[in-house]
Amino acid sequence: MTDPARPAAPGRPLRTAEILAVGSELTTGETRDTNGGELARSLGLHGVAVRRISALPDDLLLVKVQLREALRAVDLVVATGGLGPTPDDLTREALAAAVGEVPAVDGELEAWLRALFDRRGMALPAVNLKQAWLIPSATAIPNPNGTAPGWWVDRPDGRVAVLLPGPPRELRPMWHEWVLPRLRARGLGDGRVVRTLRTYGIGESHVAELLGETMLRAANPVVATYARADWLDVRISAIDETDGAGRVVRPATEVLEEATARVRDTLEGFVRAEGETTWGDLVAEAATRAGVRFAVVEAGTRGALGALLADVPALARAVVVGPAVAVDVASWPAEAEAAAVAQAAGVEVGLALVAATDDAKTLLRAAVAAPAEGWTRVLELRLFQHGAHGRFRAAVAAAAFVAEVLAG
Amino acid sequence: MTDPARPAAPGRPLRTAEILAVGSELTTGETRDTNGGELARSLGLHGVAVRRISALPDDLLLVKVQLREALRAVDLVVATGGLGPTPDDLTREALAAAVGEVPAVDGELEAWLRALFDRRGMALPAVNLKQAWLIPSATAIPNPNGTAPGWWVDRPDGRVAVLLPGPPRELRPMWHEWVLPRLRARGLGDGRVVRTLRTYGIGESHVAELLGETMLRAANPVVATYARADWLDVRISAIDETDGAGRVVRPATEVLEEATARVRDTLEGFVRAEGETTWGDLVAEAATRAGVRFAVVEAGTRGALGALLADVPALARAVVVGPAVAVDVASWPAEAEAAAVAQAAGVEVGLALVAATDDAKTLLRAAVAAPAEGWTRVLELRLFQHGAHGRFRAAVAAAAFVAEVLAG
Repeated sequence: MTDPARPAAPGRPLRTAEILAVGSELTTGETRDTNGGELARSLGLHGVAVRRISALPDDLLLVKVQLREALRAVDLVVATGGLGPTPDDLTREALAAAVGEVPAVDGELEAWLRALFDRRGMALPAVNLKQAWLIPSATAIPNPNGTAPGWWVDRPDGRVAVLLPGPPRELRPMWHEWVLPRLRARGLGDGRVVRTLRTYGIGESHVAELLGETMLRAANPVVATYARADWLDVRISAIDETDGAGRVVRPATEVLEEATARVRDTLEGFVRAEGETTWGDLVAEAATRAGVRFAVVEAGTRGALGALLADVPALARAVVVGPAVAVDVASWPAEAEAAAVAQAAGVEVGLALVAATDDAKTLLRAAVAAPAEGWTRVLELRLFQHGAHGRFRAAVAAAAFVAEVLAG
Repeated sequence: MTDPARPAAPGRPLRTAEILAVGSELTTGETRDTNGGELARSLGLHGVAVRRISALPDDLLLVKVQLREALRAVDLVVATGGLGPTPDDLTREALAAAVGEVPAVDGELEAWLRALFDRRGMALPAVNLKQAWLIPSATAIPNPNGTAPGWWVDRPDGRVAVLLPGPPRELRPMWHEWVLPRLRARGLGDGRVVRTLRTYGIGESHVAELLGETMLRAANPVVATYARADWLDVRISAIDETDGAGRVVRPATEVLEEATARVRDTLEGFVRAEGETTWGDLVAEAATRAGVRFAVVEAGTRGALGALLADVPALARAVVVGPAVAVDVASWPAEAEAAAVAQAAGVEVGLALVAATDDAKTLLRAAVAAPAEGWTRVLELRLFQHGAHGRFRAAVAAAAFVAEVLAG
């Protein structure tokens, strides 16, 4: 086995990639591939251009051909799935054929696999032996959560192919803890550094107007907006600024910091968080700072608010008024409900939300009450979103409201 | 415009397909493609073999090359996304280039588009005019929910390419109401008919053992199991049985009915539903038959049960005990909680669920109570699933339990 940290053909930067998911359950639509998007995002954050994400059936020829073509077209190929013990699991065979090598049982892997089954009190089934296969150009990627090791394959031209098992709980640690550090050591992407600012309370076109064409069309830093269900994200990324001779004039981190400060300044009052922060995180933080626990009650939202805040440590109780009870936004006593749910749960603060959605809009009314302290705040909004999306946005509005009230 | 119901080159059955999603937001992992899986499932149910599902960036050359290759490799190509008005939206250009035709504004489409903007009180922006483009071999697919019509393109060799807009609420009706009927008229797939039986309370290996190798390896009917989070599905599909001369000996529907009866018989007591039935549907039906409304309270499950039953018309109230309150499966009074939540909501039946999950298992206790009638039923289970999956399975177990109690 070669050690991929010391590459056979160093110097080829890994700037383009293709991602493959193998499994007939994907191409029949029985299950959805989630690995491709996750790996693409991870690579994109490092400035790698992903040229294609695809799902293929368990068909040796199709998988082999696409692996071979990908190894001609891009610097890095990552394939997931098809590393199980059954005859349908043929990703190893396909890659071996694509690079013209023959798999053989690796002694170390076989010993590891036998020990794994020993600990389960089982003999190693004959079919599982292919999980101990390697080809001469492959290094095994340890899998702490399953019986399928991955493969890291070095090509003579410096390209890399990586095979990973399909289950996310096996794939994720292998990717983040083993593969990604080695890819970075090889020179992954264009040295891009990235920051995401999460805004709320402002529309995408308004953000674009405030940031301006010049900023949004610049090549370095790249500033782009992404409208998500819960946030409008502004993603800023930068690479080293170089002179004509390729010498670094300004490092990427400096370009990023300067652009981030400018965006924060321009969007003052709308930037609520950074990175992957959730509304649950924000409400949790506000409750902790205020030193309170709280309870929620919602009507007309099918539990969207409770789901949004389900993991908040300070949440004592979430009540959903179900479809069997007719409620009306105008007449539902949100203030009294907020106080009542806090008292019933024996906590300091109550949050009540009522919403109604039709084909075009969502109306909502939210109240935050602290019955022992004798105060109540009320929010009324009309949202352009409707249906399930409208109900979700109503929950987000209530979460933003309670976070604000608790902070203020 | 040709009418695709009367094909230029009839007689080519559409048995293989490739699905493409176009958009750089997919290959950077910023958003996930859900259309590919949906279309694959729809095609798979008709017996079409999907050879690849892929996502490509907004790159004219990449999209053109893949469209051209797909039109050589498979009978039907469906591409989604990239039909908007911006310069990044280039799927029309790519397909035109792939088939060697030149797009031009279509008079009818332009009139329709102008009328659409008129009704919004806006002039048609110049950029939107490309949404009125067609090529000579294309028929426009009407889009009742947006400004991007689709394209149906007939190839001289009988192959078909279909372009659809990316937003699911635009794509879905276009696919089901316009495209699919025309594809079926052309001869879609292998005439396969399909039925899904949803089982509960039995493991995948046990189902496989009961059904037997012979049934699971047969080519017609095809019987396959799919372990989902909420059900273990057994999918049965069949095609016409023919003799050596290709004459139909037994029609597909007859093969399907006979196989379905056999599977139902073999798995007696475990088949709970058919098709796309949800646990919410089953609980709703049981409550309606029993003529009761109900309320639920859950602890240790982060709202999984309320979420599962959120749409059930008979649900009056769903209460979640939040992370701020420590509960213990052994000591939490599920029976009393079930009665109390029913009384608080003013309904006949209460359901209480408490669960705890660790690294290996989930313990749960559920109670169904009808305080006015004075009875309570209790369920205790230990599940092999854990974490978020374990909490979800605990909710499913509680839903199955209340459906059973209400039915019995």
